Amino acid sequence: EASFEASFDVVVIGAGHAGTEAAVAAARSGASVALITGALEQIGQLSCNPAIGGIAKGTVVREVDALGGIMARATDLASVQFRMLNRGKGPAVWAPRAQCDRGLYRRAVRQLLEAQPNLVTIQGMVARLLFDGTGERVSGVETLEGRRFGARAVVLTTGTFGRGKMHIGTGTQISGGRAGEASSVLLGEQLDALGLTTERFKTGTPPRIDGRSVRTRDLELQHSEIEQFDYSWSHFWSTPRANVVDCARRTRHPAQMPCWLTMLDEAGTSIIATHLAESAMYGGAIASRGPRYCPSVEDKVVKFPDKAQHQLFLEPEGHDTSELYVNGLSTSLPAPVQLTILRSVRGLEDVRMTRAGYAIEYDYYPPTQLSSTLASRAVYGLYFAGQVNGTTGYEEAAGQGVIAGLNAARWVQEREPVILGRETSYIGVLIDDLVTRGVDEPYRLFTSRSEFRLTVRQDNALARLGEIADGLGLLAPDEQAQMGLRLGAVREAYALAERTSMTPAVADPLLLAVGSAPLQHAVRAIELTRRQDVSLQTLFAAAGVGDALPVDAVVGAELEIKYERYFEKERNRAIRLKAQGSVSLHETLNYEAMTTISIEARQKLTRIRPATLAQAGQIPGISPADLQNLLMELRRTLPE
Amino acid sequence: EASFEASFDVVVIGAGHAGTEAAVAAARSGASVALITGALEQIGQLSCNPAIGGIAKGTVVREVDALGGIMARATDLASVQFRMLNRGKGPAVWAPRAQCDRGLYRRAVRQLLEAQPNLVTIQGMVARLLFDGTGERVSGVETLEGRRFGARAVVLTTGTFGRGKMHIGTGTQISGGRAGEASSVLLGEQLDALGLTTERFKTGTPPRIDGRSVRTRDLELQHSEIEQFDYSWSHFWSTPRANVVDCARRTRHPAQMPCWLTMLDEAGTSIIATHLAESAMYGGAIASRGPRYCPSVEDKVVKFPDKAQHQLFLEPEGHDTSELYVNGLSTSLPAPVQLTILRSVRGLEDVRMTRAGYAIEYDYYPPTQLSSTLASRAVYGLYFAGQVNGTTGYEEAAGQGVIAGLNAARWVQEREPVILGRETSYIGVLIDDLVTRGVDEPYRLFTSRSEFRLTVRQDNALARLGEIADGLGLLAPDEQAQMGLRLGAVREAYALAERTSMTPAVADPLLLAVGSAPLQHAVRAIELTRRQDVSLQTLFAAAGVGDALPVDAVVGAELEIKYERYFEKERNRAIRLKAQGSVSLHETLNYEAMTTISIEARQKLTRIRPATLAQAGQIPGISPADLQNLLMELRRTLPE
Ligand SMILES: Cc1cc2nc3c(=O)[nH]c(=O)nc-3n(C[C@H](O)[C@H](O)[C@H](O)COP(=O)(O)OP(=O)(O)OC[C@H]3O[C@@H](n4cnc5c(N)ncnc54)[C@H](O)[C@@H]3O)c2cc1C
Ligand SMILES: Cc1cc2nc3c(=O)[nH]c(=O)nc-3n(C[C@H](O)[C@H](O)[C@H](O)COP(=O)(O)OP(=O)(O)OC[C@H]3O[C@@H](n4cnc5c(N)ncnc54)[C@H](O)[C@@H]3O)c2cc1C
Repeated sequence: EASFEASFDVVVIGAGHAGTEAAVAAARSGASVALITGALEQIGQLSCNPAIGGIAKGTVVREVDALGGIMARATDLASVQFRMLNRGKGPAVWAPRAQCDRGLYRRAVRQLLEAQPNLVTIQGMVARLLFDGTGERVSGVETLEGRRFGARAVVLTTGTFGRGKMHIGTGTQISGGRAGEASSVLLGEQLDALGLTTERFKTGTPPRIDGRSVRTRDLELQHSEIEQFDYSWSHFWSTPRANVVDCARRTRHPAQMPCWLTMLDEAGTSIIATHLAESAMYGGAIASRGPRYCPSVEDKVVKFPDKAQHQLFLEPEGHDTSELYVNGLSTSLPAPVQLTILRSVRGLEDVRMTRAGYAIEYDYYPPTQLSSTLASRAVYGLYFAGQVNGTTGYEEAAGQGVIAGLNAARWVQEREPVILGRETSYIGVLIDDLVTRGVDEPYRLFTSRSEFRLTVRQDNALARLGEIADGLGLLAPDEQAQMGLRLGAVREAYALAERTSMTPAVADPLLLAVGSAPLQHAVRAIELTRRQDVSLQTLFAAAGVGDALPVDAVVGAELEIKYERYFEKERNRAIRLKAQGSVSLHETLNYEAMTTISIEARQKLTRIRPATLAQAGQIPGISPADLQNLLMELRRTLPE
Repeated sequence: EASFEASFDVVVIGAGHAGTEAAVAAARSGASVALITGALEQIGQLSCNPAIGGIAKGTVVREVDALGGIMARATDLASVQFRMLNRGKGPAVWAPRAQCDRGLYRRAVRQLLEAQPNLVTIQGMVARLLFDGTGERVSGVETLEGRRFGARAVVLTTGTFGRGKMHIGTGTQISGGRAGEASSVLLGEQLDALGLTTERFKTGTPPRIDGRSVRTRDLELQHSEIEQFDYSWSHFWSTPRANVVDCARRTRHPAQMPCWLTMLDEAGTSIIATHLAESAMYGGAIASRGPRYCPSVEDKVVKFPDKAQHQLFLEPEGHDTSELYVNGLSTSLPAPVQLTILRSVRGLEDVRMTRAGYAIEYDYYPPTQLSSTLASRAVYGLYFAGQVNGTTGYEEAAGQGVIAGLNAARWVQEREPVILGRETSYIGVLIDDLVTRGVDEPYRLFTSRSEFRLTVRQDNALARLGEIADGLGLLAPDEQAQMGLRLGAVREAYALAERTSMTPAVADPLLLAVGSAPLQHAVRAIELTRRQDVSLQTLFAAAGVGDALPVDAVVGAELEIKYERYFEKERNRAIRLKAQGSVSLHETLNYEAMTTISIEARQKLTRIRPATLAQAGQIPGISPADLQNLLMELRRTLPE
C-alpha cells in the first residue's frame, strides 16, 4: 500500500456532528483514526440553529456524553443561553436545550478533537473510496487534492453536502453543501455506481437579522437558566459559573445572553399565503420531502391555515455579533418576501435582514441498506452516520456517529459489535427505527418514538450508559473516577432514602403542603418519594440528613425512585404490544377520526392501510405510542 | 427606487481587509454604509498566513490605525506571537509583526465592525452592479440571492474571489475564491462587459501541519515579545498584559504562543527540482504572474539554485488548534510531493500535513484605470481597493480600503477628496505607485518604495496622520482625547529634551559607554540625542528628570529628534531626483552589472530600456531607491 500517504484503522469522512463523534468514539476504542473534512475551520459548524438539545434530543446529547462523546462538553464551553424545556410537566420529560455561541462552539469542538489521542484531522474533500483487490472491501479514500489515505474501515458522514443544491425562491439555485461552502459531487457519483440506493431530502433555514434593528423593548425577554446546568458529567468544575472564556483550562460557560419571543401573526401569514407559488418548496423547484417537525413557515401556513399566530424565538448567535437567529421562520421564499414577512412581526418593524433563509436539497441513503451496526450491507467496511441516513438534527447525527465510530473500530479490531437496545437509550430507538423501518421523510427523534420514555431520561443517561461505555473501554482513568463519584453519590442518596424513616410529625406538614395524604405511622423516605410532587430533597432537609450530598445526586436518586417501577411496566407493555402484532386492521377503519394518535400516523395509516398491527409498526414514523393508542382506539370501537 | 430593500450612501462589496476598512472609513466619515460579503462568519478571514505587519506593512497597519481603521485594534485582540523585525538595525526601520489566532482575529474584526455606528453587514454574493438612468453612474447592487440595495457609491473589494481558480499540481483545478469558498463569477463578467480591463494574477499558500507531529525539541524556539507592544494607539489599557480573552471589555492580547524555525535544505530543494514539471506554476497550468516577494518555493529553487538553505517558520494558527503554518513553503506542487518535501525538513521527519498548499489565479483590474482617489475613471461612483487592484497582502489591502472608503463617502457628500502624499505615508506611496505606474506583477510594499523611509516610520504614524484623521472627522471624542494625551506626552518629552541641560559630569559616562565623544561643556539633551546610539531615556534618567513621562512617549520623542533633520534631506533628494528626469539612459548601459540597484529593477531596465530617468521612474516596481542608486551608478561610469 505504498501509494497511501498514511494508513489508519478508521477514516471518517466529514467533521459535522456525526463525523466528530464517530472519530472520537473510534479513537477512544483504540483505533487509529483520521477525520477528513472539507474545511478545518468549519469543524463543528452548526449549519442551522445555534442550539443543542431539546425534547428527546437533549437526552441524546447526554447519552453521547455518557459514551465519551464531545457534543455535551463542547456545548458547556459555548452555551450562552439555557432552558430546561417542559419544566411545567413531570421531570421524566424535562429536556435541556442550550443556545451556543457559534464560533465558540466550533473552537470547542476543534480543541476537544485535538485533545483526543489516536485522532488526526485533515482538510480535504474526499472524491472517492478506494477498494482492495476483491473490489468489495474499502481500503482507503482519495481526496480532490489527490491525497490517498489507507483505511480498514470508513465512516461516511457528509451531511447535507451530497450533491447539495440551495434554493431561494424559484429563481435562485446555488450548488453547495451549506451557504458559502462547496458541495460533494464525485463521492455521490461513485456510490451510485456501486449500486447503493440514493434519494433526496430537503431542509431549510430561516433568515438572520441584526439585533440592533430589533425593538426589543416591545418583546418578551427570556433570560438564561444556565447557573443550574452542566450538560456533561465529565467536568471537574461546580456551579455557579464565572463569566470566563478559556477553553484551555476546562473552563465554564461563557457569559449568558438573553433571547426574545415574538409572534408571526395574521399579517405575516397572509404575505406567505400570497407568495406561496414563489417558494422553492411550493413553486415546484424542489420535489423532495422536508422535515415534518422542523417545517418551513410555508408548511405551517399551508397545514394550519387557521392558526392565528406562530411563535418566533430570536436567539443570539454569539458574543462576537449582534446577529439573531429567527427560530420558527425557516423558508425558501424569495429574499425580498422574507424581509416583508419579517417586518410584519411585532418588534421587527424596522428590522434589517443580515442573511436570507434558504432551502437545501441533498442526497441521502435509505438506512434500510444498513445493518444495526450502521455498516453498509453492500460494501464491507463502510459505515454511514448522520444526515446521510435520512435523519435531521445535530443530536441525531451525533448519536449515530458514536455507534458507527464504535462499530467501525470494533470491526477492524475483530471485536463484538455494539448495538444499544431500545430500552437503554434514545440512540437505540433511533438506530433501530432507521435500519428496520427506514425513513420516508427526514427523521427526527421524539419521546413518543420510545417505549421507555419514563425511564430513559436525560437525568439518568450516565447511569444507563456509563457502565456500558466503561465496559467498552471508552473512558479515561480520570473519567472513570469522576463517573464513580457521580454515580456513587446517587447511590448514596438512594440508600439514605431507603434508610431514613419519616415520622408523621416530621413528614405531614410537607405532605399536606403538596396535597398528599398525611401518614398513619412512620414510613421510609423512599416510599414517600414515590408520591407525586414529593421531593426527596425536602424530606432529607426535614429529617436533618443528607446535607453533605450534592444536590444533583439527591435529585437523581429522587427521579430513580419516582420512576423505577415504571421500567418493568414499560417493558411489559412493549412485549405485549409486540405479541399483539397479529391483530388485524380492517380496511374500512377511519383513522382520521382517531385523535389520540399523531397526525403523521393517521395520514400514513390512511394512505398505506396496513393489514396488521405488526405491519403498522413497520411504517416509518409510526411510533410505539401511536401503536398503543391505535390498539386502544380499536378496543373502544370493538364490542368487548 | 422602490425596488431597493434599503439604500445606503456607500455599499462595500467584500469583507476582506480592504472591504472592512473601506466600510469603517466611510461610516466614520458620516456615510451610511452596507458591507455585503459572501459569508459573515468569514469576515476578517486571513486567507494565507496568520500574521499582520512586517517591513513597511507594519507601518501601514499603524497608518490605518491612525486613520481610525480596525486592523491594528483587531490584531491587538488576537495576536499570540509578536516580533519587532529589524531590531538589529536602526529604529527607523523597525517593523512590528504579529501572528494572530485566526479565529480570534475574525471574531475581533466582526465585533469592531458591529461597534461602528452607521455600518451594517449583510451576507450575500453581489452578482451585479445596478446603474441609474444614464447608465454611467452606479445606483446599487444586486446579490445572487436576489436582494437589491441602493448605493450612491460602491467600493469593490472582492480580493482573490474574481473568477478564482485554485490549483494543486497540474491535475487538480478547483473553482473557488479561497479553499472551501465559492468564487465570484457574474460580477466579473459584468465588469468585462462594461469595458474595464481585466487581467489575471496568481498567488499561493503553503501546506499546514499538525504541531503534535513536529519534533520541536530539534528546532529553534522563538518566543513572543508581546509584553512590549500595542499595535494601536487607541486602547485604554497599559502594558504588561494579562492573559485574558474578552473582547467586549477592550481587553488585552490573548496568551502568547511560541513559534519555531527550521530550514529547507538540499534534500528538499532537490525534491522540488525533480518535480518541477508537476507544479501548477511550472507545469503550464498557470500562466499568470505571481508575487515576486512572496514567492513560491518552486520560484525560490529556480531563481536561487545555489542557495543551500531556505528558512522556514512554523507559526501557530491559534489557541483552538495545534495546526502550524509553514511560512516559506508556498507551493502548487501535487499534495503527495508537498508531504515528501515537508518530511525532508529537520524536525518534520514524521510530520502530518493537515492541509495541502495551493495556488490561486484571480482577476485584477489594472489600477491605472483609477484616479488617485481609487475611483474608477470609467464608471461614476465605483471605487476599487485591495487585491483587485493588483496588490498582494492584507496591509496593502487595508491601506487602500481606508482611502477608497473615505473618498467614496466624501464624493457622495460632495466634499474634497483625500489623497495622502508620498511624504506623509506608505499608503500615499502605495496608491501613487498603483495609479500612476500600474503593476506588472503583484505589488507589495517595501521601505525602498518610499523616498521618505527615515521619516515615515511605524512609530510616528499617529503624529503624521492623527491630525489629518481628526480634520477629516474620523475620530470619536474619546479617541480625540486619547490622541491628545499620546501626542501631548511626546511633545512634553521633546520639550523636556530641549530644556534639559546635560553637564559633562553627568553625560560623559553615558556617552563613553556608547563610544560617543565626551563633552567640553554643558549641552542640551536634545543635541546629545541626535548622536548615534544615545538614548533620551538614559539621558533623562541621568539628569533625574522625566520620571512621570510614559516610556513610549520618551522613545517617540527620541526618534523624532534623531530623524527630524532627515525630513528636509529626504524631500530635497526627492525633488532633485524629479528634476533629473531628463537625464538620458544610453541604450547600451549594462544594468545587470549595477549591483546597488534591486534585481527587479535590473531585470526591468534591461528588458524595457527606458530613454530617460523619468521614464525609468514610470516602470512599475522601480523604486525611488532604485532611481537614486541608478543615478549614482551613472555618475560613477561617466567622466566628471
Ligand atoms: C440550511 C440547513 C438547514 C437545516 N435546518 C435544520 C433544521 O431546521 N432542523 C434540524 O434538525 N436540522 C437542520 N439541518 C440539518 C443539520 O445541519 C444536520 O442535521 C446536522 O448538521 C447533521 O450533521 P452531520 O454530521 O450529519 O452533517 P453536517 O453537519 O452537514 O456535516 C457534514 C460534514 O461533512 C463534510 N463533508 C461533506 N462532504 C465531504 C467530502 N466529500 N469529503 C470530506 N468532507 C465532506 C462537510 O465539510 C461537513 O463538515 C439543516 C441543515 C442545513 C444545511
Ligand atoms: C491562497 C492564497 C494565498 C495568498 N498568499 C499570500 C501571500 O503569500 N502573501 C500575501 O501578501 N498575500 C497573500 N494572499 C493574499 C491576501 O489574502 C490578500 O492580499 C488579502 O486578503 C487581500 O484582501 P482583500 O480585502 O483585497 O481581499 P480578500 O481578503 O480576498 O477578501 C475578499 C472578500 O470579498 C468577498 N467577496 C468576493 N466576491 C464577492 C461578491 N461578489 N460579493 C460579495 N462579497 C464578495 C469575499 O467573501 C471576501 O470576504 C493570498 C491569498 C490566497 C487566497
